[in-house]
Amino acid sequence: MKRGSRRAARSARSTHFDERGRARMVDVGAKTETAREAIARGQVALSREALGMVTSGSAAKGDVLGVARIAAIQAAKRTSEWIPLCHALPLDALEVDFRTESDPPRIEIEARARTTAKTGVEMEALVAVSAAALTIYDMCKSVDRGMVIGEVRLVRKSGGKSGTYTRPGG
Amino acid sequence: MKRGSRRAARSARSTHFDERGRARMVDVGAKTETAREAIARGQVALSREALGMVTSGSAAKGDVLGVARIAAIQAAKRTSEWIPLCHALPLDALEVDFRTESDPPRIEIEARARTTAKTGVEMEALVAVSAAALTIYDMCKSVDRGMVIGEVRLVRKSGGKSGTYTRPGG
Amino acid sequence: MKRGSRRAARSARSTHFDERGRARMVDVGAKTETAREAIARGQVALSREALGMVTSGSAAKGDVLGVARIAAIQAAKRTSEWIPLCHALPLDALEVDFRTESDPPRIEIEARARTTAKTGVEMEALVAVSAAALTIYDMCKSVDRGMVIGEVRLVRKSGGKSGTYTRPGG
Amino acid sequence: MKRGSRRAARSARSTHFDERGRARMVDVGAKTETAREAIARGQVALSREALGMVTSGSAAKGDVLGVARIAAIQAAKRTSEWIPLCHALPLDALEVDFRTESDPPRIEIEARARTTAKTGVEMEALVAVSAAALTIYDMCKSVDRGMVIGEVRLVRKSGGKSGTYTRPGG
Amino acid sequence: MKRGSRRAARSARSTHFDERGRARMVDVGAKTETAREAIARGQVALSREALGMVTSGSAAKGDVLGVARIAAIQAAKRTSEWIPLCHALPLDALEVDFRTESDPPRIEIEARARTTAKTGVEMEALVAVSAAALTIYDMCKSVDRGMVIGEVRLVRKSGGKSGTYTRPGG
Amino acid sequence: MKRGSRRAARSARSTHFDERGRARMVDVGAKTETAREAIARGQVALSREALGMVTSGSAAKGDVLGVARIAAIQAAKRTSEWIPLCHALPLDALEVDFRTESDPPRIEIEARARTTAKTGVEMEALVAVSAAALTIYDMCKSVDRGMVIGEVRLVRKSGGKSGTYTRPGG
Repeated sequence: MKRGSRRAARSARSTHFDERGRARMVDVGAKTETAREAIARGQVALSREALGMVTSGSAAKGDVLGVARIAAIQAAKRTSEWIPLCHALPLDALEVDFRTESDPPRIEIEARARTTAKTGVEMEALVAVSAAALTIYDMCKSVDRGMVIGEVRLVRKSGGKSGTYTRPGG
Repeated sequence: MKRGSRRAARSARSTHFDERGRARMVDVGAKTETAREAIARGQVALSREALGMVTSGSAAKGDVLGVARIAAIQAAKRTSEWIPLCHALPLDALEVDFRTESDPPRIEIEARARTTAKTGVEMEALVAVSAAALTIYDMCKSVDRGMVIGEVRLVRKSGGKSGTYTRPGG
Repeated sequence: MKRGSRRAARSARSTHFDERGRARMVDVGAKTETAREAIARGQVALSREALGMVTSGSAAKGDVLGVARIAAIQAAKRTSEWIPLCHALPLDALEVDFRTESDPPRIEIEARARTTAKTGVEMEALVAVSAAALTIYDMCKSVDRGMVIGEVRLVRKSGGKSGTYTRPGG
Repeated sequence: MKRGSRRAARSARSTHFDERGRARMVDVGAKTETAREAIARGQVALSREALGMVTSGSAAKGDVLGVARIAAIQAAKRTSEWIPLCHALPLDALEVDFRTESDPPRIEIEARARTTAKTGVEMEALVAVSAAALTIYDMCKSVDRGMVIGEVRLVRKSGGKSGTYTRPGG
Repeated sequence: MKRGSRRAARSARSTHFDERGRARMVDVGAKTETAREAIARGQVALSREALGMVTSGSAAKGDVLGVARIAAIQAAKRTSEWIPLCHALPLDALEVDFRTESDPPRIEIEARARTTAKTGVEMEALVAVSAAALTIYDMCKSVDRGMVIGEVRLVRKSGGKSGTYTRPGG
Repeated sequence: MKRGSRRAARSARSTHFDERGRARMVDVGAKTETAREAIARGQVALSREALGMVTSGSAAKGDVLGVARIAAIQAAKRTSEWIPLCHALPLDALEVDFRTESDPPRIEIEARARTTAKTGVEMEALVAVSAAALTIYDMCKSVDRGMVIGEVRLVRKSGGKSGTYTRPGG
């Protein structure tokens, strides 16, 4: 760790705590409502057998990804119930997309959340990705218990005072 | 893909769908209640600065991990609300543990769930890990937007008809 | 089916799905908040004995309709939890009214919901009616298992870009 | 009203109220847990155009019934939140089935709920049907605002002290 | 503080924390399910004017206590959502009773909860009393903002390994 | 009771009921959104032993007040679920503070809630205090069953048409 970042570490403080270290909901009363968007991604690594079951899609095997998409939307709407210090905010839109890849076998998940609010919508997008991934796990676990949920991250956010963030490498 | 696994892929079906591909809650009426346990793990990779803020612990900077632990316990109790086809089950116990590592900087999360029920408690353990990770993300995102949640996986389960599963490599 | 309606059937698409058939929350970000109202109605057909129990009202027999009214209000506030792709919206007002009729014996339910929001409040009114009806069923089922909930419908809506809708026949 | 039924009306009292008319959760502490099942049905009457959109199924138009099925399962698990005096009970199984009919155009809904509990599972089955119907309404309302939810009823229940009930006519 | 109690204070530890001070859900897996009951009481002190409004009862002024009773029952069923480390348990019964007193003007609240479970039902009774009191406050606050909720306490509990507790003085 | 207040009692009506005594959500559609704040206080009276356990703080004994603070924030966000006729409103900020006093031994709780909405935020502040108190009870009850929650009251509110209210004596 270089000297500069060490000093930063000493002085950094989560805005979710006050000057005495007490958790709180940050006061957003003075912020203005603006259009905000966040895109999050993640993946589920799974066996070829489980992937085959998923890609057989909405046919006779059952629509795993369709169920996971609904789970993602419903969980995102209730983000402030999962995440203790999150402000509740009204989602303007939420879309969830999946892409299956075979080498190595995995399901890529992307959620795009939009709101008009005083705070950002990053957590809603991340919650959507996590709920989709957990639902895929649940539906495939009778075939593969070794699945791994990973690479859950914020890819892009825009709107609000802090402006646009784009993750290097996507 | 070898021939054997291809055939398996063709015949595999999630127990969460019936023979016509319709989603359902699996019938567990004939199963007996047994003591069951599941252990799940995951991690949050973060910057040194964010890690420094977390390890300053329950002092003046605020107890990020304490809040994340409560989030994990509360989310796990409501697993059947986040995961559409999950049965509701009464948790006998839930413990969440964190370990911070500096190289590379990350927080390792472990959740251990126990129940006496007709179905397994894997999803509860995985939901606990995910909720803890998302809460850590929320509380540190003012310092580091680039955090990545990963390696969320089942490490061990025991109890029930399918017996004990231990993930190779932990 | 006439030719015109057949063509319509072919081209109709729920706005709740995108062009590839994927469920989503419709993007309402560009819509403006306007005052909106919706009125829904429904009924519970029940035996004379059960109706007599209900109309004995808030006296010694217990206030079935009072409980059903509270159930309706509470369910309506959480409409976006019942209905997967519904946007959460803040209710400005909700009123629920009952009228008992004896020939044939039934309870008529009306809910009137108001909001100032980007989307309509029809589902809130319909959820209120349904929750009231189900609660009446629950409270009277020890006397009459044969009750039927029916005629649950939107009677009127106003506000928003699509303007006013009035159901023919009410 | 004949004399006999009039007397019954006078003496009938919902078990959900005590002798002074106060709402309560009925005491089921002395009842034994038994396997119970309930089947409920209902329907959504809709325009040919809306029906056409639904029967185009899980193809490019979007899987309306698949979403409605998930909504039904999730709502049923939380029946005790919507219905004030309902006991919470753990569902062993829940299945939801749809059948589309063209003359007159409608969607028939059937939900089958099972539990091992001290109280019956009728409300869970009825809630599932209602949530499915409301979700269909929500997803088709951009095409047809005139849909009517009706014939929501208990068709069969078994288990428990009161034994089996089968609705005449189904 | 006398010496004995000081030593006790030093060694006392909430069972909700492990030996390193980490919050957890206590493991009740080895405990047996027994019939348990808890009775809690509390009161709302209010102005004569507000009390007069409440005692006008279920007549034209509206049934404040009827609404508060439903609020109490619904909140108690979800106690484990309010109280982070509480186990979810299925209520066998819940009754809520009110008594109005005029000197000084107040409403006395009593809740009686029963379960057959591995843990006690004290929190459910206390949550019921609190929810009833808060609902009374909400419904009367347009008339009296100075109401005070007080004396919320456990009066009696029975069942389980720790046996019966009766509060001295009730 | 003097003549004046008796007349007031006769004419007072909760705004939560209509002219016929039916519960409703008050119509706030015509009100304007303004910045509002509410401060509520309450206390938990407990034994010296229990207080000692709490004040040992976030050390090895476990951080009772840290958990109670999170419970307060999470409950306040969902106030409209616990209180039947409350409007849902988005919290701008919520802070919870504790002060321990030794003579008599007690924990003083203060919650400060802020919103920009059409209705006041008093209930959110009172719910936060109640949830904190109940959580403290839950975490200390293995040491002291005789704790009493009391003095839960509104201390100050500002904003909205009715202006500022300050409780005499605080």
